[in-house]
Order: sequence, then structure tokens, then C-alpha cells
Amino acid sequence: MSRIAERLKELGIELPPVPPPGGNYVPAVQTGNLLYTSGNGPLGVARPQGRVGADLTIEEGYAAARQCALNCLAGAQSVIGDLDRISRVVKVLGFVNAAAGFDAHPKVINGASDVLVEIFGDAGRHARSAVGLDVPFNFAAEVEIIFELRP
Amino acid sequence: MSRIAERLKELGIELPPVPPPGGNYVPAVQTGNLLYTSGNGPLGVARPQGRVGADLTIEEGYAAARQCALNCLAGAQSVIGDLDRISRVVKVLGFVNAAAGFDAHPKVINGASDVLVEIFGDAGRHARSAVGLDVPFNFAAEVEIIFELRP
Amino acid sequence: MSRIAERLKELGIELPPVPPPGGNYVPAVQTGNLLYTSGNGPLGVARPQGRVGADLTIEEGYAAARQCALNCLAGAQSVIGDLDRISRVVKVLGFVNAAAGFDAHPKVINGASDVLVEIFGDAGRHARSAVGLDVPFNFAAEVEIIFELRP
Repeated sequence: MSRIAERLKELGIELPPVPPPGGNYVPAVQTGNLLYTSGNGPLGVARPQGRVGADLTIEEGYAAARQCALNCLAGAQSVIGDLDRISRVVKVLGFVNAAAGFDAHPKVINGASDVLVEIFGDAGRHARSAVGLDVPFNFAAEVEIIFELRP
Repeated sequence: MSRIAERLKELGIELPPVPPPGGNYVPAVQTGNLLYTSGNGPLGVARPQGRVGADLTIEEGYAAARQCALNCLAGAQSVIGDLDRISRVVKVLGFVNAAAGFDAHPKVINGASDVLVEIFGDAGRHARSAVGLDVPFNFAAEVEIIFELRP
Repeated sequence: MSRIAERLKELGIELPPVPPPGGNYVPAVQTGNLLYTSGNGPLGVARPQGRVGADLTIEEGYAAARQCALNCLAGAQSVIGDLDRISRVVKVLGFVNAAAGFDAHPKVINGASDVLVEIFGDAGRHARSAVGLDVPFNFAAEVEIIFELRP
């Protein structure tokens, strides 16, 4: 069993199936030793939809962002096969579907950042932006990730 | 005539002129074999402005996003000369100027994704995020693209 | 003194201290010869918070975006040490915290673009997107940058 698969098992994380993209795009694209994932919503959590700060608590938003990151990982795996090929998490762009006046977007996207560090350790620390906007299907959050792959 | 120029002709697509940037930036930057375009609005369609889901239909939004992608291609061409140098469409980030409550952003950004696949075939399939926010000049959509270039 | 440090001194710019990230992320990540910064707000200006077009003028928004870029540079410096290692500014993604109906986001993000060109000259010209959305902590703007580093 690969190192990351082992680590996911330790953490009790099972990567979700990769849903078929809703258009002419793919879960992830490798170019050189970078892997760009598509933006992923939080399918797989109990309450994937709604505005954080109105319909959902920060904690529910955090859980949603965590799931977004896992869905990105599942998409990455579907393209590269073995997650041990990932040498570094480079960049996270996190979108929060936030209620008017809500301004704690980073606390929500921490759900994505924290699980990446739980899984990859120091190599999981990344550059990041977190902002508030309208997410498709009224999902609570959407996250896209750039990974560095081993040569 | 280059392969992509031929393909554009077959599809009846004429790339628009590249407007001068409204600031200290450029249509595209090459680094290594990646080419990053600036975000482009839908200048060139009949109705480039308005909110999708209120002022504009999904179909009009789709046409706008398609034009955004063509404007990105025109910007890319102005920097790299020959679009045959593009080996892969890596990443699309699509912004939709959506009405409150509109949540079908992916259906709008499909206009960009579809035309890229029409032009580049399988090499046009990309990683993608699509979100809703405020686009400059009340344009219906804005799209930025990362291309991979041949070495 | 390095060339860019000299140039900053000429311009009367002092890079701000880098605040500790509010989560499991870092100010910037290098992969190959690309450096991705995290999104930075405008801490350091007189009025860092509020919506451009309502609470803040375009000029105040411009000053905020300029500061965001300087904060990105400070974050870059904290990771790569010497800013002379930067060979090119590749990409700017600028987020404006804009009032309803405000659509001059590019004029705000010009604050970031202009200071990058003041500092780096032609190598400071970049690909760029500028959009309006909700920025964390009600900051007026947030900017993230991709730099190319010398090999």
C-alpha cells in the first residue's frame, strides 16, 4: 500500500468516487510536474448546500471545505493513479458561498488546508487565497488545488 | 496555413482583434512552456453586458463565455504568434456575472469549454472552475486560461 | 544592496512585515522556477477595510490594491530571501470588495499592476484578471501573484 493511501486509512478518510464532469472538462490536468485540479464542491458531507453564515455554521462550512479538498484529491488520483506521486501542495484557491456580511472566509477554507496538512504533513502547506462569491448549485464552498508531482 | 488556423476557418471562427489592456498588464505571459492569459470579457457578442439569469438567458451567457475564450485565444496568439504552439489547454477559470439566486454557472462556462474542445480536440479538455461574482464593466462573463506550449 | 532593494529604496517603499498566516498555509510556495504567493489584503494602508464605491473611493481602492501587491512581495521575500531572484511577474489575480453596481474593478487593481511595473520595469508586466467579490475581513481588496524566478 502506498504511503498516502496508508495515511488516509490511518485518518479514517475514504476518497469519494469522482463524479463525471458536467461539461467538456476533466478532473485534473498534468503539465510538466504540476497537476491542476478542477474546482470541486463538497458532495459527500451531510449538508453540502447553503450560505455559510446564514444557512450553515462556520463549522459546517469548514466540513464542506474539507470535503472539497478530498474531492480534489480523488480527482487527482483518477488522473495520476498513485497519490504518492504528489511531492507538494502548491496552491489552494478557496471559494466560500457566504451570507451577506460574512467575512470569516479563511476560517471556512481552513477545512481544506487542515486536511491537506493532516495527509501530507509539511509538504501539505500551500499558498492560499480564500474569498466569498456565488458557488454553483448553491454549494457551501468550492476548492481548486495545484499539486507538484515528483519528476 | 497552420493546423489551428485551418481548424478555426473550418469552424467559421475569426479571432477578434486584441484590445489594448486597460492598465499595466499584457494579454498573456509565457513562462517555461506555460502561457497565462489575462482575464477576457465577451466583447464581440451581440449582448456582452448584463447579469445571467436576469438580463441575459443561459444561452446568451453561454455565447458570452465562448467569446471570452476566443478573446483569450486572440490574446495568446498576439504573444506567441502561432496557435499551433499550443499543446494542451491546462486550466480555465470562469467568472459569471450572475443574478442573485442563479446557480447554473457551469452551464454558462460550458461555452468556453466547448469551443476549446471544438478547436483543439482532446487537447482542449482542461481542468476548470466556474463561479459567480461581479465582472468588470458589467460584462456577462470573464475567462482566463492557462495553455501548455510545445517545447 | 540588491537591485530590487535599491529600487524599492528609490521609490520610498518599505516592505511591511509578514503577518503569520491565519491557518495551515504559507506566504508563498516555490515549485520549479515559479513562486505562488498567497492572497494578501491591504494591511498597511490608512483605510484597509470597506467596499470600494460605497465606503471607499476608487483612489482608496487603488491604494489598497497597491499595498496588497507589496504585501505579496514581502511574503515572497520571506520565502526566497532576495527579490533579485524574480525574473518576471507572470500573473496577478485581483479581488475587489466592491459595492453593488460598482464595475470599475480594473481601475482598483491597477494599483497592484502599477507598483509592480514601477519596481520591476518591463519584467513587471503580467497577465491579469480583476473581479468583484467578498474579501475576508471586509478588506477593500485581495491580490495573489505568480512570479517567475531565475534558474
